[in-house]
Amino acid sequence: MQLFLNKFFQEDDSVEDDSAETILVSTIDGRLRALNSLTGEVKWTLQEEPVLRSPSAVKQGFTFLPNPIDGSLYVLKNSSLKKLPFNIPQLVHASPCKGNDGILYAGSKKDVWFGIDPKTGLKMETLSSASADRICPANQKQTIFLGRTEYRVSMFDEKNRGKTWNATFNDYSAHLLPEVNTWPFKHYASSSHGYILTFDKETGEMKWEADLKQPVVALYLLRDDGLHKLPFEVMGKETMENVAKVKQRAIFIAEDRKPKNIFRN
Amino acid sequence: MQLFLNKFFQEDDSVEDDSAETILVSTIDGRLRALNSLTGEVKWTLQEEPVLRSPSAVKQGFTFLPNPIDGSLYVLKNSSLKKLPFNIPQLVHASPCKGNDGILYAGSKKDVWFGIDPKTGLKMETLSSASADRICPANQKQTIFLGRTEYRVSMFDEKNRGKTWNATFNDYSAHLLPEVNTWPFKHYASSSHGYILTFDKETGEMKWEADLKQPVVALYLLRDDGLHKLPFEVMGKETMENVAKVKQRAIFIAEDRKPKNIFRN
Repeated sequence: MQLFLNKFFQEDDSVEDDSAETILVSTIDGRLRALNSLTGEVKWTLQEEPVLRSPSAVKQGFTFLPNPIDGSLYVLKNSSLKKLPFNIPQLVHASPCKGNDGILYAGSKKDVWFGIDPKTGLKMETLSSASADRICPANQKQTIFLGRTEYRVSMFDEKNRGKTWNATFNDYSAHLLPEVNTWPFKHYASSSHGYILTFDKETGEMKWEADLKQPVVALYLLRDDGLHKLPFEVMGKETMENVAKVKQRAIFIAEDRKPKNIFRN
Repeated sequence: MQLFLNKFFQEDDSVEDDSAETILVSTIDGRLRALNSLTGEVKWTLQEEPVLRSPSAVKQGFTFLPNPIDGSLYVLKNSSLKKLPFNIPQLVHASPCKGNDGILYAGSKKDVWFGIDPKTGLKMETLSSASADRICPANQKQTIFLGRTEYRVSMFDEKNRGKTWNATFNDYSAHLLPEVNTWPFKHYASSSHGYILTFDKETGEMKWEADLKQPVVALYLLRDDGLHKLPFEVMGKETMENVAKVKQRAIFIAEDRKPKNIFRN
């Protein structure tokens, strides 16, 4: 069901720019996509576990709603939503613990290092505290290691065993390299869809747009030493569409060429 | 191979004292023993995973020596021992991370709640983020929940895959209830053996001694709400034996009765 944007760029006069870097976009469905930083072109896609798994049924009094961007938790009580003072990773760190209300919390955390080929996205190795699998023993020079953590939390009521809840949250950004301060672009992502708009920080010009069809959880810069977090602003869908339309029209008139990508509904 | 001390007390005129509480002693072999706080009598034993599992072979340059009491790590380099600034739980929390030397760290943490009958030590329930097993669904009133955490850490050298190391550390004290301030006893445990000496804080009188045959990792007080940490001092074996001998002789002379327990070599 994913429509990749490669075809748009295959039709273009593709300009190989040495200054192009690779942005990794983590979407809520568990896909990690490598995008060309100058064009937004999707180079490869890695399919992993969904960022968040939790019960979808809402039970009054014992329902938590997790935020997939940072794993923060909201509790639904008497039709009002209250943010809890901890997110899933913090809860896993503090567990095993017991609430004043007799709720037992049990957590688990599991790190995995993926050794990938940055050109193809192929997994060359998987290292975890459970095992070390080396898929391709030769040609290790190009391998870049990405760390991922799976946090799982379960809640049990000591007295009423019908009251249980659990959630799993996957995070690439548990412990990242420093943010890149000299990044020339500013990124915006839609809160409910997969739109990304990228602007040149200096000129304010829109560089590219992409629609990944799934809400964006995080952006990273892929360098030889691993992942660096890239900041992005969350924007409403309508605002983004309007910005994109105006920009596209401006590009049409000023440069007399096709827009590189078109928003679809 | 464990010699329990029950038989000594069965021969005694066993005095059931209402003020007796239950001390849990965690030993390095993974046993959790419930002792009568007034007599040192072993009431029951729970056999769990050993506190620490790590390679016993010493490799020059890539060998870590873990301390089973707190999971702290020492690195052996050029025949000198250096303490690392983190212990295994801290390393698991900080993982996935990469050292400046190209070492990749991967961790895992897994919480389990044991619901036990405090009278018998029988496990009534096991709750973890992986599963919830209820062994005995009826009669839950007496169940006390003990939280245990398994920390596992693995280290991989990015360049030389022969250089790997891993360790597992089990901890009951990850997140405990507050220490008990009004505890009337002072406990000493041998650093290399399983001797415990218990003194009355006020009178200085030795109350009881026990030999659990395995180094003591932690002491807890078992109350209805769970485990509370009890402090203890680590003492050399010879010092403990001398203290015990002197005390035993003193009791012999002053009270004209058998010592409650005898050190064995």
